[in-house]
Amino acid sequence: LAKTGEFEFLARLLPRLASGRGVVVGPGDDCAVVAVGRQRWLITTDALVEGTHFRPRWFTPQQLGRKAYLVNASDIAAMGGRPRYVLAALAVPARYPDRDLMRLNIGIAKAAAETGACVIGGNLTRADRLSVTITLVGEMRGTPVLRRGAQPGDALFVSGELGSAAYGRRLLSRRVTARGHEVRRFREPVPRLEAAALLAQHRLASAMIDVSDGLLQDLGHLCAASGVGARVEVEQLPCRPSIRAAGHALALSGGEDYELLCAVPMHRLARMRKLQHRFGCQMTRIGAVMPKSYGVRAVDALGTVYSGPTGFDHFHASTAARRHRRTPRSS
Amino acid sequence: LAKTGEFEFLARLLPRLASGRGVVVGPGDDCAVVAVGRQRWLITTDALVEGTHFRPRWFTPQQLGRKAYLVNASDIAAMGGRPRYVLAALAVPARYPDRDLMRLNIGIAKAAAETGACVIGGNLTRADRLSVTITLVGEMRGTPVLRRGAQPGDALFVSGELGSAAYGRRLLSRRVTARGHEVRRFREPVPRLEAAALLAQHRLASAMIDVSDGLLQDLGHLCAASGVGARVEVEQLPCRPSIRAAGHALALSGGEDYELLCAVPMHRLARMRKLQHRFGCQMTRIGAVMPKSYGVRAVDALGTVYSGPTGFDHFHASTAARRHRRTPRSS
Repeated sequence: LAKTGEFEFLARLLPRLASGRGVVVGPGDDCAVVAVGRQRWLITTDALVEGTHFRPRWFTPQQLGRKAYLVNASDIAAMGGRPRYVLAALAVPARYPDRDLMRLNIGIAKAAAETGACVIGGNLTRADRLSVTITLVGEMRGTPVLRRGAQPGDALFVSGELGSAAYGRRLLSRRVTARGHEVRRFREPVPRLEAAALLAQHRLASAMIDVSDGLLQDLGHLCAASGVGARVEVEQLPCRPSIRAAGHALALSGGEDYELLCAVPMHRLARMRKLQHRFGCQMTRIGAVMPKSYGVRAVDALGTVYSGPTGFDHFHASTAARRHRRTPRSS
Repeated sequence: LAKTGEFEFLARLLPRLASGRGVVVGPGDDCAVVAVGRQRWLITTDALVEGTHFRPRWFTPQQLGRKAYLVNASDIAAMGGRPRYVLAALAVPARYPDRDLMRLNIGIAKAAAETGACVIGGNLTRADRLSVTITLVGEMRGTPVLRRGAQPGDALFVSGELGSAAYGRRLLSRRVTARGHEVRRFREPVPRLEAAALLAQHRLASAMIDVSDGLLQDLGHLCAASGVGARVEVEQLPCRPSIRAAGHALALSGGEDYELLCAVPMHRLARMRKLQHRFGCQMTRIGAVMPKSYGVRAVDALGTVYSGPTGFDHFHASTAARRHRRTPRSS
């Protein structure tokens, strides 16, 4: 099951799942949304699997628990919610030391506590390889921001920075014993909860998603859900100089960023500027929402560095990487 | 991590988890309970892992999805709730056919629909071995029935039947190509949702748990949480003749039953008899709650077949099996 397979598979599966009473948003967005009385609750689940998402030596047990929690918190942030309740389903090899298992759990619990959530349950089972599956329930004040809702003409913003985490992963996989910024970015994503909550409460964002699989891929999801296209100005991407020097692929499709990507209508930009000091992170304007016919393009001063049609089945990482070729700028 | 390690580990971990706003019941019961306005919601998670819980040839993909859902529904039943929302986190080997993955998902979705629930989200990742982690959110009308609350003098009841599922698993692991009742019981647990909801709504049960790890082990959990002991009359256990003939170990500690075990105060027995026709399953009186000093004992006409102190660290399956020795009946 490659990334391409995953999204194509989901496209076939999701229409077959019946909706139910109280379901405001079903499968296919960053979180599900259910109505409980007049409240809206968000629920999401995500797993870190040894061999797929990490090698044991990449993380201490506490770091691993922490990251497993934070990637879920990022999904709650992507809709503008606040984390509340955590369930941790752990699958653990027989040889895994009890002390490490305790530290892993404490990593989850501490990260949860720091973001206002607590562990309410879980499951513990034996398995050949370590995996941590977190389910996170979030609280929503106001209306959740979905992937759909972006309109041509909206500005595109991304939080924090892109590319460093993917570079950190590359360093770790090459057995570089680095402890720098990039490795820290990979090990410890920073869910943009404050910024997201403000974007939602003040209705600044018309659509939002978290960037976990790479900017272009997740932008593709947002565009597909909204029925629009998008243009990304590569020079505007918030990257460290070292990442920029390594080429645009890390920022465009490296993945592991766990930043917010959102569309903001032009008439909300002034309000957004006023609130920016409360976001707790930089929000960088990186492009614009375009009509669907435009597709999704990334451009720099010399031309188009990426061009593809809108739609998630075309935005899996492997294809995106292959399409990183320079073509004449068409607009 | 053996079963013993699991429960001992949890005993050390759980006190370290801080509780949070709205948490009515935290980790350590069949489900967590959270308050949402005046409503109570139940949340639980449980996983089926290839190599630990099943071999691939034991289940069709649809059967596997179905069972993964049903074991979670059994946890919701154990508190008297109704399943509502399902999240399915799947970890799938690269070679796993898309068609099977679709069937697995449909197995989950169909079983959910049959019990009034629907799939609202999930996650899909690659892994070396197949695993299905379900998170289930349930709705509670009335007060959830916890593991704690049993009083000496209460009668002990168990739903349905014991031992067949464990025997079915044994048949499958011995490569017997059986399709009989026992294998069906292993493949497809029957969460006792109707009975459980009635037991909760009419406040018949003072304490309840689902029997998943074997009667004695789960009775041990209930007793430890309630601070009581218990006596089980082995001859009263609801077993098929073939299971009874194979000895009492299957019924006492075979596991995989997914039946309700509950304590019912004597003054509620008349009311329980009146409602029995609505339970949708047999509820069999199998013994009595005793003072804590009594410990937990299983007795037959000839004497005590099992005796141990109250407390979950003494009720893991391996120890229970070793303790299945006949000793003179002490009461």
